[in-house]
Amino acid sequence: MSGVRKLVLLGTGLIGGSFALALKRARLVQHVVGVGRNATNLERALDLNVIDEASHDAAAAVAGADLVLLGTPVGQMGALMQQIAPVLAADCIVTDGGSTKQDVSALFRQHLPRHLSHCVPGHPIAGSDLSGAAAAQYGLFEGRRVVLTPFAETAQNALEQVQTLWQQCGARVYTMTPEQHDGIFAAVSHVPHLLAFAYMNAVLAKVDAQPCLDFAATGFRDFTRIAGSHPEMWRDIAVANREAILADLKACASQLQHVIALVEAGNTEGMEDYFATASRARVAWGQRHK
Amino acid sequence: MSGVRKLVLLGTGLIGGSFALALKRARLVQHVVGVGRNATNLERALDLNVIDEASHDAAAAVAGADLVLLGTPVGQMGALMQQIAPVLAADCIVTDGGSTKQDVSALFRQHLPRHLSHCVPGHPIAGSDLSGAAAAQYGLFEGRRVVLTPFAETAQNALEQVQTLWQQCGARVYTMTPEQHDGIFAAVSHVPHLLAFAYMNAVLAKVDAQPCLDFAATGFRDFTRIAGSHPEMWRDIAVANREAILADLKACASQLQHVIALVEAGNTEGMEDYFATASRARVAWGQRHK
Repeated sequence: MSGVRKLVLLGTGLIGGSFALALKRARLVQHVVGVGRNATNLERALDLNVIDEASHDAAAAVAGADLVLLGTPVGQMGALMQQIAPVLAADCIVTDGGSTKQDVSALFRQHLPRHLSHCVPGHPIAGSDLSGAAAAQYGLFEGRRVVLTPFAETAQNALEQVQTLWQQCGARVYTMTPEQHDGIFAAVSHVPHLLAFAYMNAVLAKVDAQPCLDFAATGFRDFTRIAGSHPEMWRDIAVANREAILADLKACASQLQHVIALVEAGNTEGMEDYFATASRARVAWGQRHK
Repeated sequence: MSGVRKLVLLGTGLIGGSFALALKRARLVQHVVGVGRNATNLERALDLNVIDEASHDAAAAVAGADLVLLGTPVGQMGALMQQIAPVLAADCIVTDGGSTKQDVSALFRQHLPRHLSHCVPGHPIAGSDLSGAAAAQYGLFEGRRVVLTPFAETAQNALEQVQTLWQQCGARVYTMTPEQHDGIFAAVSHVPHLLAFAYMNAVLAKVDAQPCLDFAATGFRDFTRIAGSHPEMWRDIAVANREAILADLKACASQLQHVIALVEAGNTEGMEDYFATASRARVAWGQRHK
C-alpha cells in the first residue's frame, strides 16, 4: 500500500487527531495539516505533534492533499465540503468520521457530486465523552471497528486505501449501507446517549439533587459516563438520525412504562423475568466482547 | 476497639465475603461462619478462605456469635431474622448490607424487637454486577461509603463498633434516616438499574437485535453494565423501595417524553441546551468523584 503524503484534518479533535497519530506511528503519513475554528485547540495539536501545520482555511489547506478526513460534528461538514469542492485534487480521497451516515452521504452527494469516486464515508466506532485535540491518543482504534458506507460510485482503489489505513490503525473494517449503519447505531449508541442525558436531567430536577449526587457511586458513574458527551455533536446526531432515533426512543419509553406497571403492581414474578432476560443478555454480551 | 471473635455471614456473597476478607486482613476477626442456600458457593467460599466454616442452618450458626451480617437479598432477611431471634446472644450485634433501609428497618423491628439496641441497619455502597462468594475481594470497600441507619434504640457502643469495623475496611461511614437513604438511592442507584434493564429489553425486542449487539461499543458497555445485575436482588429492591422508585421512574419517563418532543420537533437549540445541562453536571460530578 502507498502512504499518505499530505493528510488534512478538517476538524482537529479526538478522531482526526488519533487517526493522525496512528498513521504517524505507522510511518504512513508525511505531513498533517489541522484545520479548526479554535486557535487554542490547534496550538495544542501542534504542541502535541498531532499535526505539523495549523490552518483556519479549509480551502487553502486541502491544496495538494491526497487524503482529507472530515472530523467535525456532522452539522459543520456541509459547509466544509462546499469550501473544498473547487480546490480538491482529482485523486484526493475524502472520508469522514461522522457518527451518522445517511445525512453525511447526502452531503457528499450534494457538495462533491463530481468527486464521489474518491469519497468514502466512514465511522470509526471509538467514541468518547472526551473531545478536542488534547484527547487524541495513540492506539485509540486498536481492536475497534470502523464502518465504511461507500457509494456505488466509489472507486475500488479509493475504498481499499481507506480500509487499509484504518487497518493499519489497528481497526477491523466493515462495509454496510448508510441505512443499516444508522439503524444499528441509533439503537446501541444514539439512544443510550439521549437516555443518559434524560436521566441526568431527571436527577438535576430533584430538590435533593445535591445529596443524591454526593452518594452516587460506580453504577451511576458508568451509567451516566456518556451523559458527559459533547452537546453540539449529539444535537447534530439527533437531527441527522431523527427517524431511527425516534422509533427507538419510543420503544424505550414503552419498555419504561412496562417497568413502571410491573413495579406499581408489585408483580414480583414479572419483574424477576424481565430483569433476568436483560441480565442474561448483558452477561452474554460481556463475555463475547471481552 | 475490640475485634470480632465470631462473625456469621447470613448470605455468603460479594458484600459479606468482602467484609470478611477485609476484617481478616486487618486481623479484626477470629472465626467466620458462612451460611447460605448454595452448597457450591459455600465450598467456593471455604476454598478461597473467605469463611472458615460453612453452614446451612442460620440458627445453629449464630450461637456464640458476636457479630451477624445479613448479606442476602432483602427478600430473604425476614425469615433469617426470625430463625436467629430465639438463639441470638444478648450482646451480639446484628447488621446488614441491604440496598434498601426502610423495609429492612421494619423487618428488624418486627423480628428482633427486643434486640434493637444491638441492631445497626447498614448499606455499603459497593454494588457490583458480580455476585457470589467467588466475587468477594480484598479492598472492595476502600474509599467507598457506608450508610448506617441506626434506630433510636440502637446503643451508642453497638453503632460505634459497626462504624469502626467499616472504617477498618477502608470505608467512610455516614448515618442518616432510612427515609433519606431510600430517597437518595432510588434516584442514583435503583432507577438507573431499572432503566438499564428497560433499555436492554428494548434492544432485545428489535428484529435486528443481533447486528445491533455485534456493533455495540464502549458507550453501550458502560451504560448497560448494571443491566447484568442480579434479577432477584433488584426485584426485592423494586418491591422494597416502591414509592421512591416509582416517583423517580415517572420523572424519567417525563424527561424522556421531553427528549422525544425535542427530537420530533427538530428543536436544535432546545436539544443543545438540554444536552449541555446534563453534560456540564456530569463532567463536574466526574471531577468531584475522581
